Amino acid sequence: MPKQTVDLVLFAAHVIPVVPRDVVLHDAAVVVDKSRVVALLPRAEALRRFVGVEERHLDRHIVLPGLINLHTHAPMTLFRGLGGDKALHDWLAEDIWPVEKKFVSPEFVRAGMTHAVAEMIRGGTTCFNNMYFFPDEICGVLERTGMRGAVGQGIMDMASPYGSGPDDFLAKAEPNLKKYAPGCHDLITVTMAPHSPYTVGENTLLKVDALVTKYDARIHIHLHETEAECNDSEQLNRASMCCHKSDQKLRPLANFKRLGLLSQRLVCAHMTQLTDEEIDDVARAGAHVVHCPSSNLKLASGIARVTEMLRRGVNVTLGTDGAASNNSLDMLAEMKLAALLAKAESRQSTSVSAAEVLQMATLNGARALGLDHEIGSIEVDKRADMIAVECDSVEMLPMYNAVSHVVYVAGREHVSDVWINGKQVLRSRQLTTVDEAQVKREVLEWTKRICTYREELQVKEC
Amino acid sequence: MPKQTVDLVLFAAHVIPVVPRDVVLHDAAVVVDKSRVVALLPRAEALRRFVGVEERHLDRHIVLPGLINLHTHAPMTLFRGLGGDKALHDWLAEDIWPVEKKFVSPEFVRAGMTHAVAEMIRGGTTCFNNMYFFPDEICGVLERTGMRGAVGQGIMDMASPYGSGPDDFLAKAEPNLKKYAPGCHDLITVTMAPHSPYTVGENTLLKVDALVTKYDARIHIHLHETEAECNDSEQLNRASMCCHKSDQKLRPLANFKRLGLLSQRLVCAHMTQLTDEEIDDVARAGAHVVHCPSSNLKLASGIARVTEMLRRGVNVTLGTDGAASNNSLDMLAEMKLAALLAKAESRQSTSVSAAEVLQMATLNGARALGLDHEIGSIEVDKRADMIAVECDSVEMLPMYNAVSHVVYVAGREHVSDVWINGKQVLRSRQLTTVDEAQVKREVLEWTKRICTYREELQVKEC
Repeated sequence: MPKQTVDLVLFAAHVIPVVPRDVVLHDAAVVVDKSRVVALLPRAEALRRFVGVEERHLDRHIVLPGLINLHTHAPMTLFRGLGGDKALHDWLAEDIWPVEKKFVSPEFVRAGMTHAVAEMIRGGTTCFNNMYFFPDEICGVLERTGMRGAVGQGIMDMASPYGSGPDDFLAKAEPNLKKYAPGCHDLITVTMAPHSPYTVGENTLLKVDALVTKYDARIHIHLHETEAECNDSEQLNRASMCCHKSDQKLRPLANFKRLGLLSQRLVCAHMTQLTDEEIDDVARAGAHVVHCPSSNLKLASGIARVTEMLRRGVNVTLGTDGAASNNSLDMLAEMKLAALLAKAESRQSTSVSAAEVLQMATLNGARALGLDHEIGSIEVDKRADMIAVECDSVEMLPMYNAVSHVVYVAGREHVSDVWINGKQVLRSRQLTTVDEAQVKREVLEWTKRICTYREELQVKEC
Repeated sequence: MPKQTVDLVLFAAHVIPVVPRDVVLHDAAVVVDKSRVVALLPRAEALRRFVGVEERHLDRHIVLPGLINLHTHAPMTLFRGLGGDKALHDWLAEDIWPVEKKFVSPEFVRAGMTHAVAEMIRGGTTCFNNMYFFPDEICGVLERTGMRGAVGQGIMDMASPYGSGPDDFLAKAEPNLKKYAPGCHDLITVTMAPHSPYTVGENTLLKVDALVTKYDARIHIHLHETEAECNDSEQLNRASMCCHKSDQKLRPLANFKRLGLLSQRLVCAHMTQLTDEEIDDVARAGAHVVHCPSSNLKLASGIARVTEMLRRGVNVTLGTDGAASNNSLDMLAEMKLAALLAKAESRQSTSVSAAEVLQMATLNGARALGLDHEIGSIEVDKRADMIAVECDSVEMLPMYNAVSHVVYVAGREHVSDVWINGKQVLRSRQLTTVDEAQVKREVLEWTKRICTYREELQVKEC
């Protein structure tokens, strides 16, 4: 039988397909053609059956699905480390809001987004779920860099640099929902991203829900991030900035349930405050939770009950949040922290195994975005979103179990190669679709402007 | 005035001396002669006053004191990632104890220790406090590699590969306590390292205390690591492996106080279980606590009350524990986790600032070892233990505050250069005193033997 010619044959020392869970294939090959995986098989069999236009031998590597970051505000990399170690409201009021008001513009978002794409790809992230302003600029960056993303159309009840208020935001969103509806674009989908129940009123939320139903999209929102948000809403303490914009004395999730917003279309970031009954409500509705452990710890928001959520059948995914509150977009670090923290929170060292957390950071993320038929695992017919992790450095040796090592040992610096939609975007640590020197130059220019402005405001630390 | 000739002048974009806290010097120079810092001053002044036999320009770097890892079992790097996600006792009984019994020998300790030195230096650690067997082998590795360490003489009430029992361990310890007494060696000090109150009886502990008093040394011990250790000791539940070896119905710390063991000579690893009164006891005695957040989370031991300890005046230091339960010797990661976790534990995002955790990982560690007159900060007359962290990568940009960036953003991969006792041991990511290729070869040989043995035992995962 003649060999089949394909775009790429990847020979790897170890492959973690994620489906089935806990499996590691040794001396295996991933065969890619026309952006999709066409075979996953033993090396010897691949050599008999396929010829790659490109063939790559990753003999010191683990190949796994690209990581999916389910909650971030990507362009905020330009504010990385601004302020910090402060009370949440002081930090927002003194550090974040003034510079956002001054600087967030199409140019800013383009520079920050390109910087974030560079960081994400170098750290093994191949898809992200974003919430920020100027989604058209973000889509443009994804087109240019070959990055995959779910681009949130930011919605608030107040004006922002992006628009005059909710109706303006909604009007701007609809063309994108149409253009990037499921199946319409290889890399990009669009979500509606109302900021939170305390910044977006019920009326707007219901309009958002009607839109996502019409266009088969998702709602991406901050929910139950802090105890104050839940308590102040339940007590309808309107003096609090965290009180939901409703006349109901209810916790925000209960109000969402009442309004019919709690569904499989809902992707809820944070969710550090959930009772057993609320966890069951989320599971029954098929809504999705984004666990953001670094951000939740850093802002003292609380510790999400991941072990219990998984036990009760919630689809739990993983996110870094923005680089302003993390201070990195490092999904490998986030996986390790999620696995460690779950053990302390549940008081059981068996909670959230390496394989479980890897599934959270890949397949569960894909499912939350409605993309689990396309990405999240290395399976035949799925898109070829894959990363290679070197496993022969001083820090990675010795290796007894590849899944454990990816979660508990590997750092972003061990990510050597990344493919998105079958196209290589990182090759031996070099970005192929982003001009790294240009990114750095632009970041430094923005930094200068931000520092100068903060000096004018007499903020310390620049 | 003629310029003074010195061994090394280091020009750096940013210097964090740690003392005084929260200070960052820009465009500064560290001047080193005969293993010690002789000046820390502005670049221009250094150019006027000094000529270095070597001059180094670190224009994209932060220079700070080397990190001090206050609790590890360094040679266990060879067991990195063995087992995991298991209940503590299952992990020890199925994964760790069988291979320790089979393999721990002078050769094993030499290979593992050299591997650990390579990992620690590459991660910016310049001093560590160790607890393991075969201390003579460990001292030999430190001599050869130029690494600084406090070498624990492991003590248990049972036999080990290193000796027949407590009297044998004590007899072997005394010559080392004498040879490496404070001030006797440039790099090495020795501690007595009785494993824990549940493996070492009171009689042995009192003999250990007499020895450390005689030789001005420290006791390095696991203490209040788990709730079970405290409860089972208080209830004198002798069926539990965690019950202290005493006839007193007391929590181990209370028993240590009764025995006169609670003093400034005591360095207590873990301490996840402390009441307010116990924290005050530790502070009053001047004893030292080693916070090991990764290990404590991973083994579900609990979360140490670091904010309260610092508030009440305890000297809190930082440790990675062994690579078998972390699974890395990465002090930068440990600093970030300690700062994040403290905020969640205390429910205040202002808890344990970047500057505080950096002090825990440097000066506080030096103080716990009785070496704060020698190391832990970049100050005139102290030993030149320093590291350089690159700050111009995609992941590190932009940088608004160097202290925050070292803690919340930097990874071990950003450590470019390391000096210990004035001697360069890492130069542009290359180890200068360890043969990296040789280390990897030896690690792979040990891994093969360990995997073969585990296959014989029919353990999964190799």
